[in-house]
Amino acid sequence: MVKPNFRELRHAYGFDEVAIVPGDVTINPEQTDVSYTIGKHKFEIPIIASAMDGVTDPAFAVRMSKLGGLAVLNLEGVQTRYDNPNEILAKIASAPETEVTALMQKTYAQPIREELITARIKAIKAGGAVCAVSVAPANTKKFVKTIVDAGADILVVASTVTSVRHISKSEHGLVFEELVKQVSIPVVVGNCVSYSACIGLMRTGVAGILVGVGPGAACTSREVLGIGVPQITATMDCAQARDDYFKQSKRYVPVITDGGFRKGGDVCKAMAAGADAVMIGSMFAQAEGAPGLGFHWGMANPHASLPRGTRIKVGITGTLEQILFGPTSLTHGSQNLVGALKNCMGVCGAADISEFHKAEMVIAPSIVTEGKYYQMTRPTC
Amino acid sequence: MVKPNFRELRHAYGFDEVAIVPGDVTINPEQTDVSYTIGKHKFEIPIIASAMDGVTDPAFAVRMSKLGGLAVLNLEGVQTRYDNPNEILAKIASAPETEVTALMQKTYAQPIREELITARIKAIKAGGAVCAVSVAPANTKKFVKTIVDAGADILVVASTVTSVRHISKSEHGLVFEELVKQVSIPVVVGNCVSYSACIGLMRTGVAGILVGVGPGAACTSREVLGIGVPQITATMDCAQARDDYFKQSKRYVPVITDGGFRKGGDVCKAMAAGADAVMIGSMFAQAEGAPGLGFHWGMANPHASLPRGTRIKVGITGTLEQILFGPTSLTHGSQNLVGALKNCMGVCGAADISEFHKAEMVIAPSIVTEGKYYQMTRPTC
Amino acid sequence: MVKPNFRELRHAYGFDEVAIVPGDVTINPEQTDVSYTIGKHKFEIPIIASAMDGVTDPAFAVRMSKLGGLAVLNLEGVQTRYDNPNEILAKIASAPETEVTALMQKTYAQPIREELITARIKAIKAGGAVCAVSVAPANTKKFVKTIVDAGADILVVASTVTSVRHISKSEHGLVFEELVKQVSIPVVVGNCVSYSACIGLMRTGVAGILVGVGPGAACTSREVLGIGVPQITATMDCAQARDDYFKQSKRYVPVITDGGFRKGGDVCKAMAAGADAVMIGSMFAQAEGAPGLGFHWGMANPHASLPRGTRIKVGITGTLEQILFGPTSLTHGSQNLVGALKNCMGVCGAADISEFHKAEMVIAPSIVTEGKYYQMTRPTC
Amino acid sequence: MVKPNFRELRHAYGFDEVAIVPGDVTINPEQTDVSYTIGKHKFEIPIIASAMDGVTDPAFAVRMSKLGGLAVLNLEGVQTRYDNPNEILAKIASAPETEVTALMQKTYAQPIREELITARIKAIKAGGAVCAVSVAPANTKKFVKTIVDAGADILVVASTVTSVRHISKSEHGLVFEELVKQVSIPVVVGNCVSYSACIGLMRTGVAGILVGVGPGAACTSREVLGIGVPQITATMDCAQARDDYFKQSKRYVPVITDGGFRKGGDVCKAMAAGADAVMIGSMFAQAEGAPGLGFHWGMANPHASLPRGTRIKVGITGTLEQILFGPTSLTHGSQNLVGALKNCMGVCGAADISEFHKAEMVIAPSIVTEGKYYQMTRPTC
Repeated sequence: MVKPNFRELRHAYGFDEVAIVPGDVTINPEQTDVSYTIGKHKFEIPIIASAMDGVTDPAFAVRMSKLGGLAVLNLEGVQTRYDNPNEILAKIASAPETEVTALMQKTYAQPIREELITARIKAIKAGGAVCAVSVAPANTKKFVKTIVDAGADILVVASTVTSVRHISKSEHGLVFEELVKQVSIPVVVGNCVSYSACIGLMRTGVAGILVGVGPGAACTSREVLGIGVPQITATMDCAQARDDYFKQSKRYVPVITDGGFRKGGDVCKAMAAGADAVMIGSMFAQAEGAPGLGFHWGMANPHASLPRGTRIKVGITGTLEQILFGPTSLTHGSQNLVGALKNCMGVCGAADISEFHKAEMVIAPSIVTEGKYYQMTRPTC
Repeated sequence: MVKPNFRELRHAYGFDEVAIVPGDVTINPEQTDVSYTIGKHKFEIPIIASAMDGVTDPAFAVRMSKLGGLAVLNLEGVQTRYDNPNEILAKIASAPETEVTALMQKTYAQPIREELITARIKAIKAGGAVCAVSVAPANTKKFVKTIVDAGADILVVASTVTSVRHISKSEHGLVFEELVKQVSIPVVVGNCVSYSACIGLMRTGVAGILVGVGPGAACTSREVLGIGVPQITATMDCAQARDDYFKQSKRYVPVITDGGFRKGGDVCKAMAAGADAVMIGSMFAQAEGAPGLGFHWGMANPHASLPRGTRIKVGITGTLEQILFGPTSLTHGSQNLVGALKNCMGVCGAADISEFHKAEMVIAPSIVTEGKYYQMTRPTC
Repeated sequence: MVKPNFRELRHAYGFDEVAIVPGDVTINPEQTDVSYTIGKHKFEIPIIASAMDGVTDPAFAVRMSKLGGLAVLNLEGVQTRYDNPNEILAKIASAPETEVTALMQKTYAQPIREELITARIKAIKAGGAVCAVSVAPANTKKFVKTIVDAGADILVVASTVTSVRHISKSEHGLVFEELVKQVSIPVVVGNCVSYSACIGLMRTGVAGILVGVGPGAACTSREVLGIGVPQITATMDCAQARDDYFKQSKRYVPVITDGGFRKGGDVCKAMAAGADAVMIGSMFAQAEGAPGLGFHWGMANPHASLPRGTRIKVGITGTLEQILFGPTSLTHGSQNLVGALKNCMGVCGAADISEFHKAEMVIAPSIVTEGKYYQMTRPTC
Repeated sequence: MVKPNFRELRHAYGFDEVAIVPGDVTINPEQTDVSYTIGKHKFEIPIIASAMDGVTDPAFAVRMSKLGGLAVLNLEGVQTRYDNPNEILAKIASAPETEVTALMQKTYAQPIREELITARIKAIKAGGAVCAVSVAPANTKKFVKTIVDAGADILVVASTVTSVRHISKSEHGLVFEELVKQVSIPVVVGNCVSYSACIGLMRTGVAGILVGVGPGAACTSREVLGIGVPQITATMDCAQARDDYFKQSKRYVPVITDGGFRKGGDVCKAMAAGADAVMIGSMFAQAEGAPGLGFHWGMANPHASLPRGTRIKVGITGTLEQILFGPTSLTHGSQNLVGALKNCMGVCGAADISEFHKAEMVIAPSIVTEGKYYQMTRPTC
């Protein structure tokens, strides 16, 4: 019998499956430059706080901007549905485990109010910050004028999976080429995970791409829908799309790896894999003053008929400054993310992010080497 | 020394080892079509309830049919051995753990009664449902006339492993070509897992193939007999056989992935791997009104000398409608299976099952990325 | 820079990493033949009890032989050091965990007595059994005459690793070619794990090969010495050596996979990988009447300066007949090993062991697919 | 679309993922030679105690030297910051878990005193031992004269990652070529993990290379910085660099695998992978008389702003003699390391370390084969 043509699958890798190889040259971490650019906005640190209700509110966005980073405000969450979102956030934080999904389903059923969109954007701008806000593709046409008029600096259009072409019975679907021409501010779009989807989105003229669908095994998109590509492979493929698109167009579209980060090493790996910046949720939900009050949840959670994810207790572990820059006495890597990145770039001899993209990585699953003598013999570097 | 010719083994993959890659185009989930056909019977949803005593009784079969699906009644279980099977099912549900295997060995030693076969089929037909029933190859010749005469619509001939040619001292073995010619109703056969076994069965003229032997590590066929192929690889290989057979014969024989499903994502992955429909046991055993009363067991369990599997407490988690269509407040994917499938097809841009078969998948073992900060940092999609 | 010539390593696989693929033809298990031959001795079942003190004593050897199998008596254990070994075995069984290694180090420091060698062999022969006994290479020359004179049928010369050529200062080392010529009975040698070591031993004229060094991760040879090859790869490589040697010499030397078996599926996998027979320790130590009284330990345990392994409580789970042939109500595969093998050969369509060697196997690590819903959703085959 | 040029990653392996294959020839362990050389110093055993405060103090260095090995004194730890280091060590050992990182950050903030450098070196020399001491590259120029003048025999210049060229604003960086010419004693440098970094360092004229960055999953460099290469691959690559450099230069520079060892098997694997010697921390911290008093920590722990690793309780398990040479009644491989190495070389037929480098290894992850019947069925070799 002729051998059948078996379908071959490609391996994809996540944070815990790879490691960065130090370079042949090293550099003093203080001499590394970790800045990057979205449109005309330059940011000193390549770390963005997620558009999630437990992470970013106007006050948090102002603080992130002052520290050299960026935070994206979700315009479809509690901030634009309630005059007093803190009251709602306190309710979510105090709800018992068994009732929280139902409470969130109800909470997020309230309508979005345009005057609150305006108010939240103005609050961020009043704080002197770069103002980035996020809407889903389905709501973009409806709210874009309000957003731009209120003075937002960056528009993020994001859903679990966003593609160049969305087939729908609705006649007036969102067309990214048109959106980009219509608005004067940079448009960041996501999420995507493949080379072809990413380069397709870049060709529409957008100013940045969010990478990540169902990152990590814990994300329930993997459980509920079966979709997702681990973040290292997704980042590498999209970085390749960026580089190929840059060769064709001479336009550099930053790739922002979004989701699944648990420690500084993950940030380093995403950047070495090709990211220009990273978008982080849960580690910032642990900051003093984060709106979630020690809790964290995703925007797919309150879905009325197919909720994914759940409210997670993350606790409050330090200030935003400590999480970004240290000092810290925590040794597992959830604080001093910028210090970790600069140290890692130092041992790789990378003076800036573009050089860091050339760092070598190896496949080295960490679980395999965790043996039963772990406690006794934890090496000490 | 000349290098010896070492035997090479192929990798096979299961549900937890792969993930689906979103497409370059997306589609509104409401515009996806998930229907498929067995013989002349078209089903609106590609989900079949297993021929297991804890899952399907006549009442359950009627409900599944009304909801657009199909349930297969096992003609070698309690339904055809006892006038009052509910009494027996209650006994099994209440037996202590230590006595249940012996109780089942005794329960299933009672003879199958032909008049009960007739009665159960007529009950399903009386409910207005498509009636599918299952027998083992060894009993098929004996019962086939009774089955067809009683009005069954689909005949499923299934055992742990079924092949085109079974070598036995018995002179009058079952020949599928003869069976297919003899009966007027579609014959679905299984189970098999390889390209060659599958295409061989298709060539006999059968109307559908069940795929799956020892799916998942937990199935004790893997422990007791060492046999089994993980479901994604088994499905891909059999789907390839179906497509090759279709090219040769112009006859399309649906491939039904049978067993090992634990959540909506698994259903999506099997369908993306090439299945036309899936057969599900334990998730339906959790439905209100399922005959197992919150328990589930396989038909290999009561084997007199080599029992495999055991009675599992699955609990009752919701209505059959919720399991199939939601809404749900469970976030781990065991409810709203059709919604999950349609959402996944949406992000893959697949308008129907045939298009969904072309979705890209990657190897991405979920266990590897489950680290020790799991609880704290569960991403939220 | 020229790319350096990185050293490449081959993957090796153990029982839990592979699965057997059912065949395109099936056969009634009752029509399968599982017999094999060592020298002129034909055995009805391809299962050998290990030369370990907790497994084989003369009475156990007689029972195994009567059931169609073989048990090997260890001539360097308690049976040949003590007039009343049962007294010693009871002491080991009742020793506290903390004292047992020291107790065994002391127990096995007593000298081996030749008259006890003779007595134990004669006891086995008096029971009407085929008598197989085992010595280490270092003691073979010293005891071989006593062994043969006492009437043993098969001589097993085994140590953790045995090679054709052992470099030592001792002038009179064991030479297998000489030993084989000297004794009239078949000589079985082991253990080895590689193609080259195996074919080398076969060329000395021995009648069988034991395969297995440090099988399984739990064996402390892997921890203490770092050596070991997982059993499926070791068996495949040695089976290839056997087949190549057979082509050259027309002499068929059976390969016996020794160690690491935990369930019937493991036996099936070793046989499908190419073994002619398997040697089992712990599963037989669980038999009623086994000398270990519910405990099991290896012969490397009592090593004076570098003990490996330890005493394991295995419990007593059934009769030897149940373990070999069932019936059983245990569902995890530790009983009815012959039934499991015959069933597996049946679904592979293999009428005898030689045909079973052609069964297809796939790499399918069982741990990867064991998710967190395991308890709830254990499929039922 | 043209297929994009996806970035490919190489697999890297750690101790638990490989195993050593026994050879075709075996040798009596007593006839194996495990000696190696650094510069003109020959050592009878290829085992070096780490430059860590919980492991090596002058007394420990003297004992290691007398037993044929070597211990490296850390000149940047408590020994050179305090007149009475034992007092400090006792404080660290008794500090509560929650306060220990802060205590260490404070403890290591005290200045290094040159007169204590001199005193510690003289103490080791007075004991009749070979004296090896370690400093970081940043401190080397400052202390090298003091070190050499005090009579040290071997200078180790080590940091987490050390490269030939370190880019820094400081004008007077360390240049290894100059250092090697300046000092009369052998200079050992590390750590590195790649072929290119290793061969680059060898070309500067150094006398030995330390291999290992973030070995093992437990090392928090992997978590905090994302960097690290598992030790087997790192050792193989650096051994290849050593062999290639030797072909070019005729100078043999020993490769010392540093870190991540948990048992004798790990030592054997590192040596088979190409190491000339191994550097061990935690297993020696368990010795009676080790300065850590049953605790162990790394030199990256007290880092002021980005601590990595933590204090580990290792306990005291035996004498240094037992750990190196046995006898032992521990069966998991943490004692009699030299015995384990010699036994392993014996079964591989390797008469010396150079022959042992040719031993075959296979990829055989131990975690995969650890199933749920582990307790019951632990094989006994």
